[in-house]
Amino acid sequence: MALLVQKYGGTSVGTVERIESVADKVIRSVEQGNQVVVVVSAMSGETNRLLTLAKEISKRPNERELDVLLSTGEQVTIALLSMAFHQRGYHARSYTGSQVSIVTDSAHNKARIRSVADEKIHRDLAKNRIVVVAGFQGSDEEGNITTLGRGGSDTSAVALAVALGADECQIFTDVDGVYTTDPRVVPQARRLDQITFDEMLEMASLGSKVLQIRAVEFAGKYRVPLRVLSSFSEGGGTLITYEDSMMEQAVISGIAFNRDEAQLTITGVPDKPGVAHQILGPISEANIEVDMIVQNVAPDQTTDFTFTVNRNDYERGLEILTQIAEELGAEAASGDAEIVKVSLVGVGMRSHAGIASKMFQTLASESINIRMISTSEIKISVVIDEKYLELGVRMLHSSFGLDRL
Amino acid sequence: MALLVQKYGGTSVGTVERIESVADKVIRSVEQGNQVVVVVSAMSGETNRLLTLAKEISKRPNERELDVLLSTGEQVTIALLSMAFHQRGYHARSYTGSQVSIVTDSAHNKARIRSVADEKIHRDLAKNRIVVVAGFQGSDEEGNITTLGRGGSDTSAVALAVALGADECQIFTDVDGVYTTDPRVVPQARRLDQITFDEMLEMASLGSKVLQIRAVEFAGKYRVPLRVLSSFSEGGGTLITYEDSMMEQAVISGIAFNRDEAQLTITGVPDKPGVAHQILGPISEANIEVDMIVQNVAPDQTTDFTFTVNRNDYERGLEILTQIAEELGAEAASGDAEIVKVSLVGVGMRSHAGIASKMFQTLASESINIRMISTSEIKISVVIDEKYLELGVRMLHSSFGLDRL
Repeated sequence: MALLVQKYGGTSVGTVERIESVADKVIRSVEQGNQVVVVVSAMSGETNRLLTLAKEISKRPNERELDVLLSTGEQVTIALLSMAFHQRGYHARSYTGSQVSIVTDSAHNKARIRSVADEKIHRDLAKNRIVVVAGFQGSDEEGNITTLGRGGSDTSAVALAVALGADECQIFTDVDGVYTTDPRVVPQARRLDQITFDEMLEMASLGSKVLQIRAVEFAGKYRVPLRVLSSFSEGGGTLITYEDSMMEQAVISGIAFNRDEAQLTITGVPDKPGVAHQILGPISEANIEVDMIVQNVAPDQTTDFTFTVNRNDYERGLEILTQIAEELGAEAASGDAEIVKVSLVGVGMRSHAGIASKMFQTLASESINIRMISTSEIKISVVIDEKYLELGVRMLHSSFGLDRL
Repeated sequence: MALLVQKYGGTSVGTVERIESVADKVIRSVEQGNQVVVVVSAMSGETNRLLTLAKEISKRPNERELDVLLSTGEQVTIALLSMAFHQRGYHARSYTGSQVSIVTDSAHNKARIRSVADEKIHRDLAKNRIVVVAGFQGSDEEGNITTLGRGGSDTSAVALAVALGADECQIFTDVDGVYTTDPRVVPQARRLDQITFDEMLEMASLGSKVLQIRAVEFAGKYRVPLRVLSSFSEGGGTLITYEDSMMEQAVISGIAFNRDEAQLTITGVPDKPGVAHQILGPISEANIEVDMIVQNVAPDQTTDFTFTVNRNDYERGLEILTQIAEELGAEAASGDAEIVKVSLVGVGMRSHAGIASKMFQTLASESINIRMISTSEIKISVVIDEKYLELGVRMLHSSFGLDRL
């Protein structure tokens, strides 16, 4: 008998029919002899409906009250799902975040979980009840309702799995696992049976939308076995493991990419100590996050400085950089919003040389120009022109042997 | 400075615009120097929307989970109303029933309030915050969410007024007070500036829909000054008082009527001790509530027995009575579903003789036949044919001097 925490997102519980399918799916797990704690999101569309009401009243709704409002979304789902269990003859009990209790700090709209009480749930499980918990929400030490912000339901599930000592935390979503890359771009993409935690973390931070990076980090910290599965079909999904030394570890596990990138460049900057800070300081003060950074020193004692930002921040970033260029007596500030980042991810890289040069060679064979490069122990990222995205990803997917047989 | 508990029902908070009007109305009270605790219902239509979702899953939804579901209705309203206060520059704080905390018994869907904690609210009021509390809901001693059933929000408001020692509990509704009778039947009906608690209780139990009888009883038990006002217009409404000896007490305060009545009769019952119980026992076991009862003994040692029930229970009641008639060897069971009850209410009756005979005479002057009579210290009820309802009420309203000048 295993203790499973299963999380179903907004699309999986988007209608009454889907809630009933989730109930059937959970019951199959129970009938296989498992104890199940279900974590659910608000029905898809509900959070937006509530936000619209709030925005009609105030452009910037009070943060405490916004949490009171939005937390009703998951509360509706836990009640309906529990009713579906009862209707099918199974005992079930729903809990809001406050009831269970998931204690957070007081940072409304983006609270962080401090502790999760497990007694009530263990008591219910011992009575053969299915436990249904509202994701995304908790309450602070004074009993104020809080929400965890984007992807919060995944985090709730992982936190519950940690607190309960669950055997597995299963995240049910609209895809059936983690793929070698996005199947919409490369039809030959394969679902991975497992992926290491470090790889998953890189995939998530590099643009893969399957799991929220925050939940992955949380799971990694406590080494909770985490599995991604489909709400709509059967299958084992992808297991995130903490074991790096698999027998037949592929060199590369997957290819992530991110279209939301833009590049900013400042050229001919007089090269003096502290110049990097003089450039990036004002950018960061404007709350613009910088991703990759490259600096070249020219023989004439000037330097060129290039970095990437989220595409939404491109216009504002270029404005700031133009002003910095003036102040520093630099040659020019320029930018390009039509670039993307493509990354190879794989723990096998650690023990295999020549991955980078093979990557560069593959792209060069199609005359795809590499504009920036950034490496870590288990990933290589390059920035290329957006128009080459699909071509580049497909070439790499094939040349690193990730295609279906 | 007075401490007011103001309750706004579902129609009063039915749209974002109406919630904003409520905010403005409350702020006017605050600006007059009052401390205000607002109790709100779910936006009109919301409870039905949620019930429909539940009914899609189960014809008889689990009662505990139904409360989890329905309680989100008021939670949405308290959040939106509090946002409206913030938007207008006023500090406000919302509380669900559990948060405040309104502790009830564990009778889901029809819980009764056991206690209300006042510390949080007093602390907030001392900080010049407007406090917004979800009506209709609470939680039991184990933290399970409960709802109070029909009219529960009025009861929540009265319970809070009691716990806080409020100076007045103001029930805002879609009428601007208690009227001498329903203005849709008698255009000359007048709003009463005040009415005694005993009269209000009779009016509520006799069919006046202005206040829930449960809330009136609760208010009476703790002698909370209760006022009915309109959400949509200004005016002092009607104050429910606990003082019977007003200077210019009218003999009659109002005329209530109830269309939801039906009459059941069993004739020629052999008159033996215990016969009333033999007749009414099976009726009550079928959960049919009996209102008025009249028994006549005939010279031949048989008795006729007539009583009224809610019109919804008429068919089933007649079936049961027919069977009883057979068992008791009675002559016949019959009934009439086209009758109504009309009641005169007034504490002045206590010190004035001849009210009943004036009532009977008024009805007789229009040839309206009286089928049953029932009296208490401050009311006289008669059952008449439904077709005479409007005529009868108008005649009585005029002959007892209740018309507008």
